[in-house]
Amino acid sequence: VTRLSLIGVGLMGASFALAARRAGTFDHIVGHDVDRAALGAAHAAGIVDETAPSLDAAVLGADAVLVAVPPSAIAGCVADVCRGLGDANVPVFDLGSVKVAVISAVRERRGALPSNFVPCHPMAGSERQGSTAADAALYRGRRVFLTPCPETDRAATAKVERFWHSCGALTRVVDAEAHDRAVAATSHLPHLLAFAYMARFGNEADRALFDYAGPGFRDFTRIAGGDPALWRDILLSNRQAVAVELDGLVRRLTALGAALGTCDAATLESRFAAARDARGAYVNSAAADPHDGA
Amino acid sequence: VTRLSLIGVGLMGASFALAARRAGTFDHIVGHDVDRAALGAAHAAGIVDETAPSLDAAVLGADAVLVAVPPSAIAGCVADVCRGLGDANVPVFDLGSVKVAVISAVRERRGALPSNFVPCHPMAGSERQGSTAADAALYRGRRVFLTPCPETDRAATAKVERFWHSCGALTRVVDAEAHDRAVAATSHLPHLLAFAYMARFGNEADRALFDYAGPGFRDFTRIAGGDPALWRDILLSNRQAVAVELDGLVRRLTALGAALGTCDAATLESRFAAARDARGAYVNSAAADPHDGA
Repeated sequence: VTRLSLIGVGLMGASFALAARRAGTFDHIVGHDVDRAALGAAHAAGIVDETAPSLDAAVLGADAVLVAVPPSAIAGCVADVCRGLGDANVPVFDLGSVKVAVISAVRERRGALPSNFVPCHPMAGSERQGSTAADAALYRGRRVFLTPCPETDRAATAKVERFWHSCGALTRVVDAEAHDRAVAATSHLPHLLAFAYMARFGNEADRALFDYAGPGFRDFTRIAGGDPALWRDILLSNRQAVAVELDGLVRRLTALGAALGTCDAATLESRFAAARDARGAYVNSAAADPHDGA
Repeated sequence: VTRLSLIGVGLMGASFALAARRAGTFDHIVGHDVDRAALGAAHAAGIVDETAPSLDAAVLGADAVLVAVPPSAIAGCVADVCRGLGDANVPVFDLGSVKVAVISAVRERRGALPSNFVPCHPMAGSERQGSTAADAALYRGRRVFLTPCPETDRAATAKVERFWHSCGALTRVVDAEAHDRAVAATSHLPHLLAFAYMARFGNEADRALFDYAGPGFRDFTRIAGGDPALWRDILLSNRQAVAVELDGLVRRLTALGAALGTCDAATLESRFAAARDARGAYVNSAAADPHDGA
């Protein structure tokens, strides 16, 4: 019997459990969640075979522990899981989209970074929530970044890569700081921008302007529909990298605003052309494949 | 015989011609375009029945004139058409997404605003170009804003509304200044933002970051693929309204950046929640209907 301990039975964790069980990677899944109702629903749906009343009970005898909790709870949960596992050499992995802050906080809580903790960030997601929306195909064809540290056990990293492969995901091992800088640029700043833009339409009178909104508006603002508490946590935990990106963006925007003010047509056109070319390069890159990303 | 004079045989004009001919609104279409090859192609494709070597020849005997040229050429073309038509009470209409600048420039060129000019802005478009991509369904279910001035002949406005209805479009008569402020908020600023954001990925090294881009990035940046010269002209011709929107956005972004810097979680969450709520209101509005907008 290969046992997975699943801490947090939301959509992301439950989808991993479904996919890994189907692949035969795990054949007994023990679930724990601070939300008792969610845990009961996951049990009733057959996502977990067994529920545990506490974290310590959940990880007892586990062959692997997936910490699938909200961003602000990850570090505390990983630290508690590692304490609960004691000397057992059991891989522990998470799903957070920011890695340095979690690694630092776990290191601080445990005194040293546990060698069995393998930080992960799957580029997958859904606007649906909860284990009832779990989808065994959620990670299929998606990229999963692993950001092990020098202290991380290489065998643990290799095991966690195999778990992801069994779910159909593509893994890539990268440096945690480089990862966080990259997602600040490609994901966190766009969310901040979309929120800042959409806040323009805060009251009823402003919403009459929606009559003038077309498909461009619809696509540009889609990510402003994200969960406010989740994005507050993600942006705060990566705030230094986000601030660097934000500064650059405000600088570029200010330059474009100045060019508009002085009717500097050449500058506007050359900046827009550079942006259009970059967009073309993105479309032609593997990243634009609809089966790979989040 | 009801004759339409089509000045400019690009996608927008050719699509109108196709739809209006099918509806029986016009049964003879005379085309003119400064691009002789494009004009020949539109003739060969049966979009126009006859080609005219000059603007004056094109409008001779017309029952209506559609000026479907790029934004920077609209005012000059409308003025020339009105001069060519002389006293003939023939409606002239355009397709530009900015109205005040065109109205002012036509007024200036003609001494007074011609009463037969009915400024229009159809909320439709395509990333394809040219008459070979013409689509009789392009305007079906789409909104078309008409911005007549006090000088505009009410019968001309009514006729142009009927032309649009025959193409399946929904018309709305609005004030030109209110229109331009609205599209600055819902369309022009998002384009400026998407261009400013996407210019971040100007060189090869930055494009390695696309590996970290998911569906959110894809949708957020789609409008950065727009034509640089077209958007240069649109933004310049509506620069005052765009500047007001840009100032507001930079103010909101700066406030969010400050909240990030001081770890002001409550401010971040409340701003994000306001944005999320506005996005929800948009989704529930008629404007989000995929058959209505551009």
